[in-house]
Amino acid sequence: MKNPDFELKFKVRDYECDLQGIVNNANYQHYLEHTRHEFLLSRGISFADLHQRGIDAVIARIELNYKSPLRSRDEFVSQVRVETDGYKQIFHHEIIQIPENRVCVRAKAVNVCLVNGKLSRCEELCDQLTRKTS
Amino acid sequence: MKNPDFELKFKVRDYECDLQGIVNNANYQHYLEHTRHEFLLSRGISFADLHQRGIDAVIARIELNYKSPLRSRDEFVSQVRVETDGYKQIFHHEIIQIPENRVCVRAKAVNVCLVNGKLSRCEELCDQLTRKTS
Amino acid sequence: MKNPDFELKFKVRDYECDLQGIVNNANYQHYLEHTRHEFLLSRGISFADLHQRGIDAVIARIELNYKSPLRSRDEFVSQVRVETDGYKQIFHHEIIQIPENRVCVRAKAVNVCLVNGKLSRCEELCDQLTRKTS
Amino acid sequence: MKNPDFELKFKVRDYECDLQGIVNNANYQHYLEHTRHEFLLSRGISFADLHQRGIDAVIARIELNYKSPLRSRDEFVSQVRVETDGYKQIFHHEIIQIPENRVCVRAKAVNVCLVNGKLSRCEELCDQLTRKTS
Repeated sequence: MKNPDFELKFKVRDYECDLQGIVNNANYQHYLEHTRHEFLLSRGISFADLHQRGIDAVIARIELNYKSPLRSRDEFVSQVRVETDGYKQIFHHEIIQIPENRVCVRAKAVNVCLVNGKLSRCEELCDQLTRKTS
Repeated sequence: MKNPDFELKFKVRDYECDLQGIVNNANYQHYLEHTRHEFLLSRGISFADLHQRGIDAVIARIELNYKSPLRSRDEFVSQVRVETDGYKQIFHHEIIQIPENRVCVRAKAVNVCLVNGKLSRCEELCDQLTRKTS
Repeated sequence: MKNPDFELKFKVRDYECDLQGIVNNANYQHYLEHTRHEFLLSRGISFADLHQRGIDAVIARIELNYKSPLRSRDEFVSQVRVETDGYKQIFHHEIIQIPENRVCVRAKAVNVCLVNGKLSRCEELCDQLTRKTS
Repeated sequence: MKNPDFELKFKVRDYECDLQGIVNNANYQHYLEHTRHEFLLSRGISFADLHQRGIDAVIARIELNYKSPLRSRDEFVSQVRVETDGYKQIFHHEIIQIPENRVCVRAKAVNVCLVNGKLSRCEELCDQLTRKTS
């Protein structure tokens, strides 16, 4: 991915693999979620604190393209880039096995915010996510 | 969903909920996977046995639309309908909370088969999935 | 187990199996937790509601003896019997694969209650758990 | 823990927390398993490779004492020390939140090896685990 806003390094944990010996599909969503939450933290926003204050960031839609599986012992980088579109935050994700730079997953997650249960534009989130960090 | 090929009843387990008090996004993929595998079993095909024989059914792409969250104690029906398209099996999914019939998730999962690691048309799988059961 | 207070039937879901092709150790804790929470519900107590009201049932200690593994397609019964001891509720668990009646796991979980974060005897929980249901 | 044989640093991932807002009990077993497997790797032994060669390391018994919960954003060290006793490898574990050095979990896991399904003393594993690394 060109110009990711954030990236995080992981290593596959054996319990994340299923009986096919590869990381179970659902666990990639865990990797992506953790990447987004660490990205938010890097911008000073805690997902857990938001929830405590009645603001829930929720995924409205996600598309995942599984290109190549991760296996036991694999290390990988999870990259994310965000764009905002009205009420939505669109996260573009790539999971890349290293050091071979094999693309494993490409995904797009659409996030919206519920403030006290109602769909709202969360200025705080939008401002921090779109802040340039150069 | 009109004319599902298969459906399965579930109840949310508390450990599937995260700190927002709702079922974590990734767990819906678990529900969908379990539904597909039970659907296969109902047609005489075991995912685990396929793997033992060198045939791996793998998801190439999935789209999930999260409409409404499931919470502790919720019961729901997971419905699936399949169509085949060349090498691909396309699974259309709906997760519907009951008894209110609230649609929680709509999803589309594209499956392909790897036979000894190579993309192949798995006749056995295709024949059984498209078999009419009336 | 003689005279269980509650039992629940399960079927292994393939995503619960790891690369050894057997249910991952941690998932048995999930089965046991779900069994306890459904047992509580059968006595009119919701784990999630308790939390909302500032009462947290927490496991202080658990011992699990793994006797025989569960695999893809296995069905099993999870049985539980409870005794109370001062501030503690002691849950005795057995997971038995059916129809062969093979014991897979025996476990003992010690629960305590935190009321607004402080260790307390939760009368409501104790009364309901020790209520005879004959 | 005095003189751990191995330790690994982690950070809580939000999906590991449940509706009580704390890490779900079962996930500590995941942390401990990953710590053991990385410890094995540090001694040149891969859990996945062992399985491929017909050698399965399996937990026969585990005791977990939950002292203090981990929450969103917590970082922690997972320490392990091993001793061997005939066919058994006994792993002593501690999970310590940092930088406060709060002990969260103390655990003891008893491992045995199955070679082609039969209980065996796995010399390879025992030799590597008890090798002094000074």
